[in-house]
Amino acid sequence: MTSQHDVQIRVRVTRGNEVAIGPGKIDLLAAIHSAGSISGAARSMGMSYRRAWLLVETMNQCFERPLVETATGGKSGGGATLTAEGTAVLNAFTVMMKEVDGVARRHVAQLLEQTPLVG
Amino acid sequence: MTSQHDVQIRVRVTRGNEVAIGPGKIDLLAAIHSAGSISGAARSMGMSYRRAWLLVETMNQCFERPLVETATGGKSGGGATLTAEGTAVLNAFTVMMKEVDGVARRHVAQLLEQTPLVG
Repeated sequence: MTSQHDVQIRVRVTRGNEVAIGPGKIDLLAAIHSAGSISGAARSMGMSYRRAWLLVETMNQCFERPLVETATGGKSGGGATLTAEGTAVLNAFTVMMKEVDGVARRHVAQLLEQTPLVG
Repeated sequence: MTSQHDVQIRVRVTRGNEVAIGPGKIDLLAAIHSAGSISGAARSMGMSYRRAWLLVETMNQCFERPLVETATGGKSGGGATLTAEGTAVLNAFTVMMKEVDGVARRHVAQLLEQTPLVG
């Protein structure tokens, strides 16, 4: 019988006391890319608009160039898109997590084969 | 000027709702190995004895065989040592973190070269 275990991996990049990039912010970038707006992204993540907006502000202030660009006004209200930098960060982080995930899971599988968890 | 950033990586193995192994528990295993007792380990980590004892209990219950063995009684009070399984888990996790760390930092360095943080 194999144990129902899970491996959780988190990578964060901090700048001073702030998290410039981490799992939550990466999910938000992906959601903004899909939804085309901060409000739509927040809704899809079950997050308040205010919280999503603050996370975007933190990211934009941590990087030399903003990762998210907002278009204010217009008939459809303000949309939001990833800048070239935002897309690059989203893609690079996703590639990294895939590799880190593979390395960690391979090691954990070996570890648990040697020293199994309960049932 | 390079930015003062930090990369934080965390790997956890959970079993149901419990963390079988994670950074805090690994530090505790290493501290028990050094101190030779749970109380000494707790002291060196600035942690209450009760908390250290609970973390050990969780680990021991999550794995098929205990990772830490306590010797009760005796003149010098109860000491604690890592079992063969405890040593194996500590070593395997440490090796894993070194590799995961290297992979993550390499990716983050590339990411930040492309899209720099402020200052």
